[in-house]
Amino acid sequence: MTLGRITTNAGEWLRGAGPRSDVVLSSRVRLARNLAGFPFVSRSSRRQREEILERCRDQIMNGQLAENVLWVGLVECPQVDCQLLVERHLISRQHARANDLARAVAVDTNETFSIMVNEEDHLRIAVLRSGVQLAEAFEQVNRIDNIIEKKLDYAFSKRFGYLTACPTNVGTGMRVSVMLHLPALKLTGEIDKVRRAARDIHLAVRGLFGEGSEAHGDLYQISNQTTLGRSEQEILSEFEHTVVPQIIAYEQQARQALLQQRSVQLDDKIWRAWAILTQARMLGSEEVLTLLSHLRLGVNLGRIQTVDIQTINELFLLSQPAHLQKINGSAMEGAVRRQGRAELIRRRLGAAD
Amino acid sequence: MTLGRITTNAGEWLRGAGPRSDVVLSSRVRLARNLAGFPFVSRSSRRQREEILERCRDQIMNGQLAENVLWVGLVECPQVDCQLLVERHLISRQHARANDLARAVAVDTNETFSIMVNEEDHLRIAVLRSGVQLAEAFEQVNRIDNIIEKKLDYAFSKRFGYLTACPTNVGTGMRVSVMLHLPALKLTGEIDKVRRAARDIHLAVRGLFGEGSEAHGDLYQISNQTTLGRSEQEILSEFEHTVVPQIIAYEQQARQALLQQRSVQLDDKIWRAWAILTQARMLGSEEVLTLLSHLRLGVNLGRIQTVDIQTINELFLLSQPAHLQKINGSAMEGAVRRQGRAELIRRRLGAAD
Repeated sequence: MTLGRITTNAGEWLRGAGPRSDVVLSSRVRLARNLAGFPFVSRSSRRQREEILERCRDQIMNGQLAENVLWVGLVECPQVDCQLLVERHLISRQHARANDLARAVAVDTNETFSIMVNEEDHLRIAVLRSGVQLAEAFEQVNRIDNIIEKKLDYAFSKRFGYLTACPTNVGTGMRVSVMLHLPALKLTGEIDKVRRAARDIHLAVRGLFGEGSEAHGDLYQISNQTTLGRSEQEILSEFEHTVVPQIIAYEQQARQALLQQRSVQLDDKIWRAWAILTQARMLGSEEVLTLLSHLRLGVNLGRIQTVDIQTINELFLLSQPAHLQKINGSAMEGAVRRQGRAELIRRRLGAAD
Repeated sequence: MTLGRITTNAGEWLRGAGPRSDVVLSSRVRLARNLAGFPFVSRSSRRQREEILERCRDQIMNGQLAENVLWVGLVECPQVDCQLLVERHLISRQHARANDLARAVAVDTNETFSIMVNEEDHLRIAVLRSGVQLAEAFEQVNRIDNIIEKKLDYAFSKRFGYLTACPTNVGTGMRVSVMLHLPALKLTGEIDKVRRAARDIHLAVRGLFGEGSEAHGDLYQISNQTTLGRSEQEILSEFEHTVVPQIIAYEQQARQALLQQRSVQLDDKIWRAWAILTQARMLGSEEVLTLLSHLRLGVNLGRIQTVDIQTINELFLLSQPAHLQKINGSAMEGAVRRQGRAELIRRRLGAAD
């Protein structure tokens, strides 16, 4: 079993089929856990990290979590494969840069979950779902957590809850996030208002690739910052029933405003995106994300009907550098990569020569 | 007879059918003349300019120059019509801004010639031809000059030749120019070398709309600066047999270099231009000139075959503000004009809904 198998199609989170997928690409719930009796990763010895790794692997790979689980040691993993895992949101950029034999990730081959070992915490268990499916994602991550906990003793304090390397995760150790596509709020300029409002209620707003990344393609990750003093159910419920529906409503209002007040400008963006994606012979990765965003908006508003949402969602992923190179079968740099990207997109959009 | 008749198609100079029209859009020869016994325009009284105007009109409109000649007084002329004449290169921008009842232009309705009265000189007689046709243009302008001279006494000095308001025109009073399309020299960056070389041999290099204008659409006007101490034939011959063929050769070399060494980049430019021109819902005038330039290059190199050169040449003109408004039948500003421009272009390129 290799990573090759998961390259050429989209993971679960980009199927584009989940509830409210016109605005919400994916839901994600992750738990931070540490083993009792060991120091946190940053303070541990190599010997200790190796022991943590072994214990976790035994439990993760024992067949109880899923039918097929892929175990990837990050130091042995080729650079392009690490990058691929980042692009698919299965590991963090920090984890990909690991220079430590005791770092690894376990991925179920349907890509519904990934478990990073020895990232910031001993275990980071994450479940990804398409559209708004936070309750479902929590149920699954909780099930995985329970299976692992049967054999491994977690660091837990009666007063604080789960103990984690960074204080922002102490308590539930849970982070809930949704990936939102907010092109209309961006076009109307209201996105900054939404960002400020989100921050005011202690939510983090990030770009496509998490911490420190830009919101290319008008894709925004919104997640909770507070993990202490509230139950998982409270956090989930507020997110699913208040925060997410409100942002969806704002985006929908902005889309309607564009349709009613600036339909020509809107169509101009949409049709230029379609035109360039189907005709350009070279495309940069950032330009593509912007164009795919406008095209996705056009499809969601029914302005363009020659392509479906799933194809666009897949292209968000397949046009990224590591995916392109995996599909191509060899390394591509600079102009050659931009050319390969344009070819792939023309082919997938049915516009190849 | 009104200006409306000349709006919807291209003038002679943009027919795109003349010799070497792959690089040279048009040839132009103009003569500067002043009437003896009157001060130059800038030093004349209004009374004197009116008398000059009358004498010139009588001679220009007496039926000997062409079958149909249109006489346009610029103060009475609506703003949009003045702008139209500028866009068609029938009057200068300076002449269009005239606030003087004694300023006018005579235009033959086939647009092979225009005669400005009381611009910088009393008379500016210009002939425009498609492609490289300098000898033919000179023959025609000379014929017109002779007819006018039969009845009007020109200011002439045995020592200096024809006397003109600006010393740069003294002597022959002749300016020879060609409008060149040099997209490949622009893309390879060699255009600056050509500009410097042209200046070294005392040629002026200007943009699409003459003095002080930018080279939008990669269109460059090259003209002689020297009018004194050399005969018309010497100037013409050097221009037609040395200067123009050399620049054409440079451009052709650059086109071949692009084809052989950077064909993907070249096709990217060409197909993006085609894509945006046929799909955008709003287009600015400068963007259109750049896109039309790349499209024209693509057609000339045989990379794109769905449109002909004449259509593209016409669009260079018809997409300009005054032309758009004349075709539309009413004033258009800002977003509405950009929308009208995109519609016109989609229609003319056969891509309308």
